[in-house]
Amino acid sequence: MIIVMKPGSTDADIEEVSRRVRAFGFKTHLSRGEVRTIVGVVGDDRGKEQLLALQSLECVESVVRILQPFKLASREAHPEDTQFQVHGVPVGGKQIVVMAGPCSVESREQLMEVATKAKAAGATFLRGGAFKPRTSPYAFQGLEEEGLKLLADARKATGLPVVTEVMQPDKVDVVAEYADMLQIGARNVQNFSLLKRVAESGKPVLLKRGMSTTIQEWLLSAEYLLAGGNPRVILCERGIRTFETATRFTLDLNAVPVIKKLSHLPVIVDPSHGTGHWEYVAAMARAGLAAGADGLMIEVHNKPEEALSDGPQSLKPDRFKKLMDELRPLAQILGRIL
Amino acid sequence: MIIVMKPGSTDADIEEVSRRVRAFGFKTHLSRGEVRTIVGVVGDDRGKEQLLALQSLECVESVVRILQPFKLASREAHPEDTQFQVHGVPVGGKQIVVMAGPCSVESREQLMEVATKAKAAGATFLRGGAFKPRTSPYAFQGLEEEGLKLLADARKATGLPVVTEVMQPDKVDVVAEYADMLQIGARNVQNFSLLKRVAESGKPVLLKRGMSTTIQEWLLSAEYLLAGGNPRVILCERGIRTFETATRFTLDLNAVPVIKKLSHLPVIVDPSHGTGHWEYVAAMARAGLAAGADGLMIEVHNKPEEALSDGPQSLKPDRFKKLMDELRPLAQILGRIL
Amino acid sequence: MIIVMKPGSTDADIEEVSRRVRAFGFKTHLSRGEVRTIVGVVGDDRGKEQLLALQSLECVESVVRILQPFKLASREAHPEDTQFQVHGVPVGGKQIVVMAGPCSVESREQLMEVATKAKAAGATFLRGGAFKPRTSPYAFQGLEEEGLKLLADARKATGLPVVTEVMQPDKVDVVAEYADMLQIGARNVQNFSLLKRVAESGKPVLLKRGMSTTIQEWLLSAEYLLAGGNPRVILCERGIRTFETATRFTLDLNAVPVIKKLSHLPVIVDPSHGTGHWEYVAAMARAGLAAGADGLMIEVHNKPEEALSDGPQSLKPDRFKKLMDELRPLAQILGRIL
Amino acid sequence: MIIVMKPGSTDADIEEVSRRVRAFGFKTHLSRGEVRTIVGVVGDDRGKEQLLALQSLECVESVVRILQPFKLASREAHPEDTQFQVHGVPVGGKQIVVMAGPCSVESREQLMEVATKAKAAGATFLRGGAFKPRTSPYAFQGLEEEGLKLLADARKATGLPVVTEVMQPDKVDVVAEYADMLQIGARNVQNFSLLKRVAESGKPVLLKRGMSTTIQEWLLSAEYLLAGGNPRVILCERGIRTFETATRFTLDLNAVPVIKKLSHLPVIVDPSHGTGHWEYVAAMARAGLAAGADGLMIEVHNKPEEALSDGPQSLKPDRFKKLMDELRPLAQILGRIL
Repeated sequence: MIIVMKPGSTDADIEEVSRRVRAFGFKTHLSRGEVRTIVGVVGDDRGKEQLLALQSLECVESVVRILQPFKLASREAHPEDTQFQVHGVPVGGKQIVVMAGPCSVESREQLMEVATKAKAAGATFLRGGAFKPRTSPYAFQGLEEEGLKLLADARKATGLPVVTEVMQPDKVDVVAEYADMLQIGARNVQNFSLLKRVAESGKPVLLKRGMSTTIQEWLLSAEYLLAGGNPRVILCERGIRTFETATRFTLDLNAVPVIKKLSHLPVIVDPSHGTGHWEYVAAMARAGLAAGADGLMIEVHNKPEEALSDGPQSLKPDRFKKLMDELRPLAQILGRIL
Repeated sequence: MIIVMKPGSTDADIEEVSRRVRAFGFKTHLSRGEVRTIVGVVGDDRGKEQLLALQSLECVESVVRILQPFKLASREAHPEDTQFQVHGVPVGGKQIVVMAGPCSVESREQLMEVATKAKAAGATFLRGGAFKPRTSPYAFQGLEEEGLKLLADARKATGLPVVTEVMQPDKVDVVAEYADMLQIGARNVQNFSLLKRVAESGKPVLLKRGMSTTIQEWLLSAEYLLAGGNPRVILCERGIRTFETATRFTLDLNAVPVIKKLSHLPVIVDPSHGTGHWEYVAAMARAGLAAGADGLMIEVHNKPEEALSDGPQSLKPDRFKKLMDELRPLAQILGRIL
Repeated sequence: MIIVMKPGSTDADIEEVSRRVRAFGFKTHLSRGEVRTIVGVVGDDRGKEQLLALQSLECVESVVRILQPFKLASREAHPEDTQFQVHGVPVGGKQIVVMAGPCSVESREQLMEVATKAKAAGATFLRGGAFKPRTSPYAFQGLEEEGLKLLADARKATGLPVVTEVMQPDKVDVVAEYADMLQIGARNVQNFSLLKRVAESGKPVLLKRGMSTTIQEWLLSAEYLLAGGNPRVILCERGIRTFETATRFTLDLNAVPVIKKLSHLPVIVDPSHGTGHWEYVAAMARAGLAAGADGLMIEVHNKPEEALSDGPQSLKPDRFKKLMDELRPLAQILGRIL
Repeated sequence: MIIVMKPGSTDADIEEVSRRVRAFGFKTHLSRGEVRTIVGVVGDDRGKEQLLALQSLECVESVVRILQPFKLASREAHPEDTQFQVHGVPVGGKQIVVMAGPCSVESREQLMEVATKAKAAGATFLRGGAFKPRTSPYAFQGLEEEGLKLLADARKATGLPVVTEVMQPDKVDVVAEYADMLQIGARNVQNFSLLKRVAESGKPVLLKRGMSTTIQEWLLSAEYLLAGGNPRVILCERGIRTFETATRFTLDLNAVPVIKKLSHLPVIVDPSHGTGHWEYVAAMARAGLAAGADGLMIEVHNKPEEALSDGPQSLKPDRFKKLMDELRPLAQILGRIL
């Protein structure tokens, strides 16, 4: 970090600021310009958060962060790509991961039909929500534990590992009992109590980006998981909130190369939530892979027009199959396997 | 809601859509334009969420919501302003509420000094965080239950009711034991598990707006509380995320008159988080009252430059007193009491 | 459009609104719900803009637009993809267009080196700014007419058609004298005086999206060109402004499939401005093609570290060549030619 | 500016960067941290724009701007508030400026009625558009020169100075002939050709903020005017584009105290465009003054429901009078005159 002094700061001001910096255990380095003096702070940026408080001194103009504030999630600390397996499925290497399934688990028939067809089309994970975060209290809230059991049954039938969302710390155990991978949803990306508890579970984690989370904040949320002892984390870009209303969110594919530069964690893309319209899912799935994503999360429903949630953005199984067939040669061109 | 059919839709398409709408228990009303046919859906909008799924039909161009999807939070359902008392302090009437105190409870000395001076300056609630949601895992995470005890002691010393944040469902009981009002923070505004549990607690609730929450979504989160049987809710605007970086967030004062039109719930403004800089707090506090807010939440710290969180946006006690003295004649002009 | 009446509206209110709608030459269609009455407006949406004023009546809750307000730019009016040629280069068909060159024309040596190498690598247009819109008045403002002459010379040397920006109506003639295609920059997308004048020029137009222009507004700006008698328009997505600061703008690739659905106009993608960092250009160029774009605009500079503008986002000629070599098989997979 | 070197940079890298900085005429100052070396650039920030290009060197991680890039518009260069007169009306001092009138000049009857009533209610400027920037080519485009003549007649009748928009450089002379103050609209805030031409005109300028213009960019646009020799500039906040759709734009009142800190230029607020709904105008006008604005711009129309533009956000004359009566005691409390 660097501390920019106001013009007109006295030597006493500069010494006072330097003294405070040193009191936090950092070294300082002075740089006197024509108009401004800058106090550089030397040391690990992880502990420097508190220096921001110095902005409240009258003689300080601003405190500017120079380094990224995350460490374990950074590529600097861990230059190699993170790779791991979930229920035998490799993640983060050449193999493209495809997580497919309905937004909500609604019934045994629905789930089995979708899971079987998704598997046949080439999906490598089954997704499906049992606990559902719904904007309206009057909307379907999920089958809860009954839904988890159906997911476990579908895994048995298809062999696909299951990823499903957990919404509160005291449900982590029950979700972890049935699921192979815990999803932290967009609305909970900064639910730090949940992050800490999920880190402890030791289960692989799918961490969605929040709709107004910067990439830096997102990696700090991942840092909660890594610092909590859980290195098996996949990031999932799912659209951010912007002024544009032609799509439900704005899928931010720029995040893919940015994450690849800043971090070693695998990153996948969710074009279903990102666009909110099934007609745009195929184009953005292709674009996600081309941007360098390690996988995709795609909503598939046997009867989207009757779906209890997210019908407008769900693909029918045959459209999903067609998309997978298109993606295979694309993955090959990109040096990946699908 | 209305369902806009694609141009070229056949009578069979229109009948199919109408049949599906009726199957959900709604009546339909057809309107044939020159190019488009519109299927109007007649009935309570609260149950219509699921009709959005009809967008996935090939013959449907779009499904457009006409009415607000919240009910108990709406002014239509409840034309009179909501008013209630917290520990003897009236909320939502002519009296302006001022919640002041440090971002984090850091020590007995810090809290007592701030609480005493805030009270003397005219604050009507004491704020202070014991459980802190921090972006970085390496930042101070709060004194937790020890902080709650200090808050209770400060209430005893000053008589000020205490508002403090609760971050997870299984901590609601312990926070409710010490606090007079439970705060749901910006990052948890769509933590629906927490909303449900806080509703059950019966404690008054301060519901902050999320940094990318639309006013409609915010009122739906309030609806979770009201539908859960808890009518004592205050909304708190605290800044949204935009492209502008001169301020930490963009305090959206437009939300105040919008909320006053759409809802009967009291709304207060937090210029400390909204701007992120103590130098802008006074101007935006004045503007908040002038926009029609029922109160303010302001961070006050005895030594902002040593604060463990949010130092740059905290006022010193003497600046807070000066602000309160400026606000009093302003409140009077606006027909309010401070 | 539909006009939603407030609850409690009387028959007289409804008749008054209907009368006003009919006075504008439209037919009305009433739909009475349980709580709200809706006045549907039947007729061409292009003339309905003015009906928005009815929102100022006390009895009207809102006026909701149902159809897109553009006509000539819509796929409904023109189902086939628009295709045309510029200086013999086909646009909008199977052939991928690649516009490459420096942000600013700086000197003959610079431009000739870049143009020659871009051509050798497979570029199909030469881009380069002679009139430069610069945020700061102290930044390099372009070589102006001298730059135009250099562009014309580079065209003669390479055969590449030239696209360059025009910033004001009274310069359209001079720019049109040298250029094959006129570019309207992001900051001028709603400079309607300029749009009208460029439409009259009859020259093909590259219309960049503004940094906060919705897709609907962008297509309305294109409508100015089409309605002005100029059908040869290419749209160029170049990034929108969001809260994310890791990239200079947020390249919105979702716009590509949305434009393909709503309009018949060709659309290309500019990953240089969209990301602002050369390291992200290749990933987003690939993603742009995969999303369905008809081409790319890429900044190439022989010495980016000495560039007078946009150095950080410019590729060196050898990196540009490498990217083109990667894009060729990708284009083939997508059924395109490069 | 400071240049952050990548970890692992060699002494040769650092010397190479330093050499390039010195070649631009700046001095350097090295600061070696534990992980990163920082090259500080000493000298006037106005010329440093081009150093951003050094980001394209492989050894450079980032180039960070420390100082504001504008000079003449800064409070540092000009500590006293700018004050001036327009047609005898003082701007920028204690006196609150109120610019009122219709969005578009539509007819002599309309303009005269509105102007007379606005004057009677206490307005100090007459606003009204003769050249109208309209999103749709099918919307009313203004009366053009005929509108300017009506504005001049209204000034003669009421004594109110006239502010009206100019949209293109070659119309500056004709608009300046009739108007007392030239308005640069939100869509033209970065129309640099127009800024340069308006600077030359010598007329006072009202510079609206663009809908996605940062405060820094806005002040750089003002810098174009000041550097062009025209010191009489008023800034006008009129709402920025965000994700919120309950208001037409998000009026960013935070900009008022930020501008007051960074600049000496007067700043006014336009709650009509900022909110887009007449029902919110009064609240946000009050809030604007309380935030410290030097004035207001408010749309007033005798028949908003028949307005050819912006009807939904226009106040009727009697509502405007009521608002002015409310604002007077508020201005007094704030130490201003209205």
